[in-house]
Amino acid sequence: MSGPALPPGGFEVRGQELMAGGRSVTELAGQAGTPLFIYDGALIARRVSDLRAAMPAGLGLHYAIKANPLPSVVAHLAALVDGLDVASSGELERALATGMAPGRISFAGPGKTDAELRAAALAGITVNLESAGEMRRLAAISAALGIRARVAVRVNPLFELRQSGMRMGGGPRQFGVDEEMVPALLDELAGLSLEFLGFHIFAGSQVLNGEVLIDCLGKTVDLAIRLAADAPAPVRYVNLGGGFGIPYFPGDVALDIGRVGQALAPLLDRARAACPDASFAIELGRYLVGEAGLYVSRVVDRKVSRGKTFLVTDGGLHHHLALSGNFGQVIRKNYPVAIAGRMGVAATETADIVGCLCTPLDRLGDNVALPETAIGDLVVVFQSGAYGASASPSGFLGHAPAAELLV
Amino acid sequence: MSGPALPPGGFEVRGQELMAGGRSVTELAGQAGTPLFIYDGALIARRVSDLRAAMPAGLGLHYAIKANPLPSVVAHLAALVDGLDVASSGELERALATGMAPGRISFAGPGKTDAELRAAALAGITVNLESAGEMRRLAAISAALGIRARVAVRVNPLFELRQSGMRMGGGPRQFGVDEEMVPALLDELAGLSLEFLGFHIFAGSQVLNGEVLIDCLGKTVDLAIRLAADAPAPVRYVNLGGGFGIPYFPGDVALDIGRVGQALAPLLDRARAACPDASFAIELGRYLVGEAGLYVSRVVDRKVSRGKTFLVTDGGLHHHLALSGNFGQVIRKNYPVAIAGRMGVAATETADIVGCLCTPLDRLGDNVALPETAIGDLVVVFQSGAYGASASPSGFLGHAPAAELLV
Repeated sequence: MSGPALPPGGFEVRGQELMAGGRSVTELAGQAGTPLFIYDGALIARRVSDLRAAMPAGLGLHYAIKANPLPSVVAHLAALVDGLDVASSGELERALATGMAPGRISFAGPGKTDAELRAAALAGITVNLESAGEMRRLAAISAALGIRARVAVRVNPLFELRQSGMRMGGGPRQFGVDEEMVPALLDELAGLSLEFLGFHIFAGSQVLNGEVLIDCLGKTVDLAIRLAADAPAPVRYVNLGGGFGIPYFPGDVALDIGRVGQALAPLLDRARAACPDASFAIELGRYLVGEAGLYVSRVVDRKVSRGKTFLVTDGGLHHHLALSGNFGQVIRKNYPVAIAGRMGVAATETADIVGCLCTPLDRLGDNVALPETAIGDLVVVFQSGAYGASASPSGFLGHAPAAELLV
Repeated sequence: MSGPALPPGGFEVRGQELMAGGRSVTELAGQAGTPLFIYDGALIARRVSDLRAAMPAGLGLHYAIKANPLPSVVAHLAALVDGLDVASSGELERALATGMAPGRISFAGPGKTDAELRAAALAGITVNLESAGEMRRLAAISAALGIRARVAVRVNPLFELRQSGMRMGGGPRQFGVDEEMVPALLDELAGLSLEFLGFHIFAGSQVLNGEVLIDCLGKTVDLAIRLAADAPAPVRYVNLGGGFGIPYFPGDVALDIGRVGQALAPLLDRARAACPDASFAIELGRYLVGEAGLYVSRVVDRKVSRGKTFLVTDGGLHHHLALSGNFGQVIRKNYPVAIAGRMGVAATETADIVGCLCTPLDRLGDNVALPETAIGDLVVVFQSGAYGASASPSGFLGHAPAAELLV
């Protein structure tokens, strides 16, 4: 893809120039240096408001910090969403730093250490319990502190989220408590120094098929209603999970959130009737920030080897591992790519775009159709706002980390 | 694998306790905390001396810093080897910090920036030229500085290194100059402000089959001899590459370096006859440090989900991406694993070992046979001295980086 009339993610084009936050990407890269991630705050805000408009009224929206933990991005989102979800004490600190009320922060993840559980209990956030063992450790820590830590039970459902990029439920899992074990766990929980809030049911991520997502949300609501019957107290909170995907690759079609929202409305009515004290939320990471981010690197060398043209940039998999096809993918596929200052210019050549690392894994684009591209030009990779800088081996080969800019 | 009589890499066992550098791993982990990489300096030194004994006399041995750039490891190796190879200006600084003579340091990698070329030229190290464009940029920088930067031509051979984990030669590549283009490049080089030293021919990495390696070394020597005929000055340096692999997975058999050394001797004689002014070296990274490293994490949770036992540790792919199967591998295979304080104890259970990250990618061992393992026990992953801490997304999910210790 080279300079489509409408670039992915809603970025604007002026003349041949790609814009982000009302400024030219060429200018931003000139000022901040390359390689560079640019996140467009207005696009993030628009994504949140589009989502709110599509979802049933009163459905809470949480941001899973893991998708993009840049402090400025987290602060921007904290003002737009109803809660933050964290996966470590490092992320917990970032969440608290935004001023988000602790009661609106939850902490999920297997392998929480005693230190992390203690920090969570003291901060007054909600701990999503991943196992009976974790529940007992947290209860002991709470009792020793003389408090009752706020908890939700993370449930590993029997059903799977089909077509998901990452399955996190169904079958044996390290995540959550098997749904069939939850009633016994709730019995035990009732006698512990813990404040029971509700359930966290998260089956997987990166789904583009609305029907699959609707099917999963329906099963999730049914499961929450069934489990609520065994709860030691009225359910006050249900995290329905997320799984909303974004299109990365040729042929991917964007999720129809209007359809998901319409289907979710009656499900939510049913859930509210069964759990009248509960608030319901979905938890999204990638969906909120993924399309609002660009990865920009500069062409350092251009060479032809045995008939194939290589553009070598100053970027690489040390900044954007998923782009190289090495983060959960079996087969590498191209992200959408363009040249920042040559949007809409017809493609006249085909090139492999590689990074500066001394490894054949460092591929940014294979056989990409581009306008003629010279040393100094800026290669832009779209759909790079999630799981980029923070999910890449930034120290690999001793190169500098990428700059990150919220505009 | 659980506590074999002879653990991989030459680590010692005392009673049921795994030792590193003469100290118990349990004690080291207690002092330094987990997760932790431990590198055994004596094992690294033994690896170098075994290799020297096996290789023909006078063959230079270089360490490729990228395999493990921990400053203490680089300093340790700098005293044992004849040269250091770097892949960025960050690694260049680490190499110079050891006191290694600049004339014994070389810099390879596509996408070297002007700033990196300038730093290399000023430091007096050897730049392995990856393209005609890079040669011209370095020549211009050298001329502006009034010096002649030391260069070798990195050659992309026509032959491939079969069975290599990472192919870096043969076919179209971003690495080096296609061998058929080298004579013309040397013609041009003769008129530039550059000091020609020789060639760097690197076809790939991680080969366990000695015959394949010998075949490749033979072709490499032949190619160097052919190219020397076109050199603008007597060849003074040939880097024959590396590619020596280490066994990671069940069924892998260690490389027979005795056999490789014997076969290399006559090849080297021939090369020396053709290039009497040249020194010859091999460049190794993983082979020198990979087996001397352990990755140690502590069991935080133990749970059974639908019949499968999970051991959840405080480690994960944020420290050891390759272990999770997400760094160039198509299929995840288990590294050798043991429990630090229970070496030699018979396996009585089978468990999945996972890290603390909230992603299904975070797998440290699948269906591993172990002695019964409890919360607090130390899971040791062998063969973890190369491409571990530095090649992993340490910031992912906001957890702390692993400690690293040379003992």
